[in-house]
Amino acid sequence: MTGSEVKQRRRSGGRSARTAARARPLDEAIRPVRPGMPGGQLRPLKETDVERINEAALQALEEIGFGSAPASGRAYLKEAGAIEGDDGRIRFPRALVEDMLAKAARNLTLHGRDPKFDLNLSGTNVHYGTAGAAVHIVDPKTGDYRHPTVQDLYDAARLVQRLDNVHFFQRPLVCREFESSRELDINTVYAACAGTTKHIGTSFTEAANVAPAMELLHGIAGGEDAWRERPFVSNSNCFVVPPLTFAEESCEVMEACIQAGMPVLLLSAGQAGATAPAPIATAVVQAVAECLAGVVYVNAIKPGHPALFGTWPFVSDLRTGAMSGGSGEQALLSSACAQMHQFYGLPGGAAAGIADSKLPDMQAGWEQGISNVMAGLSGLNMVYEAVGMHASLLGFCLESLVLGNDMLGQVLRCVRGIDVKDEFVNIDVIRSVVLDGPGHYLGHDQTLQLMQSEYVYPDIADRSSPKEWEERGRPRLLDSAQEKMRSILADDGHTIDAATEEALRAVLPLAELSRP
Amino acid sequence: MTGSEVKQRRRSGGRSARTAARARPLDEAIRPVRPGMPGGQLRPLKETDVERINEAALQALEEIGFGSAPASGRAYLKEAGAIEGDDGRIRFPRALVEDMLAKAARNLTLHGRDPKFDLNLSGTNVHYGTAGAAVHIVDPKTGDYRHPTVQDLYDAARLVQRLDNVHFFQRPLVCREFESSRELDINTVYAACAGTTKHIGTSFTEAANVAPAMELLHGIAGGEDAWRERPFVSNSNCFVVPPLTFAEESCEVMEACIQAGMPVLLLSAGQAGATAPAPIATAVVQAVAECLAGVVYVNAIKPGHPALFGTWPFVSDLRTGAMSGGSGEQALLSSACAQMHQFYGLPGGAAAGIADSKLPDMQAGWEQGISNVMAGLSGLNMVYEAVGMHASLLGFCLESLVLGNDMLGQVLRCVRGIDVKDEFVNIDVIRSVVLDGPGHYLGHDQTLQLMQSEYVYPDIADRSSPKEWEERGRPRLLDSAQEKMRSILADDGHTIDAATEEALRAVLPLAELSRP
Repeated sequence: MTGSEVKQRRRSGGRSARTAARARPLDEAIRPVRPGMPGGQLRPLKETDVERINEAALQALEEIGFGSAPASGRAYLKEAGAIEGDDGRIRFPRALVEDMLAKAARNLTLHGRDPKFDLNLSGTNVHYGTAGAAVHIVDPKTGDYRHPTVQDLYDAARLVQRLDNVHFFQRPLVCREFESSRELDINTVYAACAGTTKHIGTSFTEAANVAPAMELLHGIAGGEDAWRERPFVSNSNCFVVPPLTFAEESCEVMEACIQAGMPVLLLSAGQAGATAPAPIATAVVQAVAECLAGVVYVNAIKPGHPALFGTWPFVSDLRTGAMSGGSGEQALLSSACAQMHQFYGLPGGAAAGIADSKLPDMQAGWEQGISNVMAGLSGLNMVYEAVGMHASLLGFCLESLVLGNDMLGQVLRCVRGIDVKDEFVNIDVIRSVVLDGPGHYLGHDQTLQLMQSEYVYPDIADRSSPKEWEERGRPRLLDSAQEKMRSILADDGHTIDAATEEALRAVLPLAELSRP
Repeated sequence: MTGSEVKQRRRSGGRSARTAARARPLDEAIRPVRPGMPGGQLRPLKETDVERINEAALQALEEIGFGSAPASGRAYLKEAGAIEGDDGRIRFPRALVEDMLAKAARNLTLHGRDPKFDLNLSGTNVHYGTAGAAVHIVDPKTGDYRHPTVQDLYDAARLVQRLDNVHFFQRPLVCREFESSRELDINTVYAACAGTTKHIGTSFTEAANVAPAMELLHGIAGGEDAWRERPFVSNSNCFVVPPLTFAEESCEVMEACIQAGMPVLLLSAGQAGATAPAPIATAVVQAVAECLAGVVYVNAIKPGHPALFGTWPFVSDLRTGAMSGGSGEQALLSSACAQMHQFYGLPGGAAAGIADSKLPDMQAGWEQGISNVMAGLSGLNMVYEAVGMHASLLGFCLESLVLGNDMLGQVLRCVRGIDVKDEFVNIDVIRSVVLDGPGHYLGHDQTLQLMQSEYVYPDIADRSSPKEWEERGRPRLLDSAQEKMRSILADDGHTIDAATEEALRAVLPLAELSRP
């Protein structure tokens, strides 16, 4: 290379070239972050502590057991080897739990309707998504908290479809306009499926609502066989009312979902200091015991049925008893849970990213960022409630969801970690820059090569200098988020074809969704 | 205990009792978080990677070496065994580095003027504080970026004095009103000392300014001997212009500080992709090499002089070459640096908590929260720039500093980790609540006992329900921060007595500070 060729080449690495290179869509193969990257660099529990928690959980199952199993569950569990006591509680001998752990599904795939969104829940693979049951939708500018509708849910799904760092869509809010739980449950599934082809999570109010929802899902999938081959909706199931009590209706829902071939999330949502013990470690003990009972229950019905270990303990603000999802204690709980999932080798999920703040403000940012990054670094397979949640889960905010995508980009970069290839612990580049080169790395080939594969750039988050920011009229973050939200929602992202939808609408009470 | 006594006791654990208990100031002994808690649960680098980075750094020192040493430094280094090449560069044989590492100060105490603020930099002990050289002060409501004055620095120091989770005060901004660097440097120390008795960090523009600053510090300390016994100000020293070039004037400042008994922070502030290599691992290699040269330099002058290993690499947004302190790459860099400090067993510091956002908004929250929690979990001894920094270090914001104290409370709770005492992996409490008790833990003795020692409560961050928040008129976070800021600044927190100040003012050009 001649001197002028070198100069030419250097110049081509200038600012405009870099900006242009960045503007091209990223080749999937070199995307710096993606769903399912392994975490596990963070270990808040020592290995011996993990074992002690397991021991205590097994002891709780054997000695305290569970109350309130429905008749059907009682039959399944006793048939499998659980023991019903004089006090009506079902107790789980250690050997039974261990047998069922051996049968439990591992290395689960949670399907997207579009296979490119499949989630591989092996090892410490990390995925982020929405979830929750917010009863308000938040206007982030006025602070209005209003009742959400199915249109809000549809819009949320359409946003998630377009936000790369949100890997699945579990319903984050409860549509408030329906008179019957049947209509609510059917339309929750419908609006989610109409908005996204990523994996969906839903809940059912009662077991009777599973059948019509399955009719809907078979229709969308193209038949029951197609559904059963790649079930793209899972059931988020609060089968337990902590402490250690079965939730009868939810257990019946779970049984119906298992029969229908729907993966279940075994959700134990105790609240430390209220429905779970106040010490973080003991709250984990209880959540683990509860989910182990769930594993026994599921595998007693159908060995190997896809189920997630949903130790999902929350935190109380002990001054008031109110929930605090944005606390450090919450981040530790979910992080510890990830380690327990890994101990059992089971696919698992827990909550992170919850803001206590009512608005997407600085408090919300640190609350969501801290718990999300710790969950990912701990290798939590499914990080639920990661974006959009405010007021300790009571409010969901669409603008916050859009902002959360940028936050998760940063979080995922941290989860990806540090690449220590041989060429990166080699001093050749330093030597050439210092001894023979320009004395800086800005236009260096290595820098240009790494610019898209090693660095994550936010979409809305502003990195401009105060001068540039001033020149652009001091744009506010919320305005940028709103602009992006509106631009996504202005596209027709409907993901159910018209013929299918018409056929389904003829037999099911599907709501009218407003499309752009 | 009779039944009614039990009831009485339970009732005393109700909401009002808990709120009242919380209102009492916390006994130091049971404070849930404190300065110097050990981190280290997060290990982004494998042990073998740490060794490879060390090897590459030693090789860089031996083969590439450093340019531009001042004459004095050249003499010290060559006397110690460094080799000056024909190209004028100073190279460091591996044995020299290892010898000097053996002499370097370890388990350092950084003193506060008030001994209760002493920082013990052993092992993975974590401390958070301010730092930086912001050239703007930010009005978070209007977005105005104006030039800071010594009054702003004084106010920042007075705030830090009262914010429990900010453990030291390194000067975060550059006072812009002084005509001479002498006035600037003296008044920077003065305003910091006048506002806080926590450990202070400062910088000097040139070596000649060290002597008058020492006159000030001897006066405040009560004489030179008292100063030398407990030096409460350290020198943040950019002795290197990366890559691998000594900063002559800063080196001379460093020599003067060493003679004056002032601890030095050996600050290598490269920027990955610009003045440091783009791969994270190689940026760490270069920063480590640079700080190792600093260790040789310091210990060649005065073996065992207190020095901090300040690998402080920043990140470029490679699209523009601009700095991005709020990126995931930044969080990884500082986290990896903490591991390197631990490998050498040296006290160390790096940057975290920088927001790229111009304002204390949601972006700032996640940017600051993610990097701060990762720095702490990695066991970084001194987390600099942890609060208040915006616009990639160009702006400092007092309201953000106040908010940052709450963020750090959450972060510190995470660093503290999970206590797995025997009584916490014991099912007795669960058993009694489930089998004999009320079925919940709200009023349980254990819950009440742990409420202050295990749970952290934010000061400004809002955890109220939407309903309560509505009733209180939808308070905005920034208003709460401003209210707290004003209430602290309304107190006269001046920490230099009048007689001392008068004597010093007679001989030094001290600025007038406005006091409430």
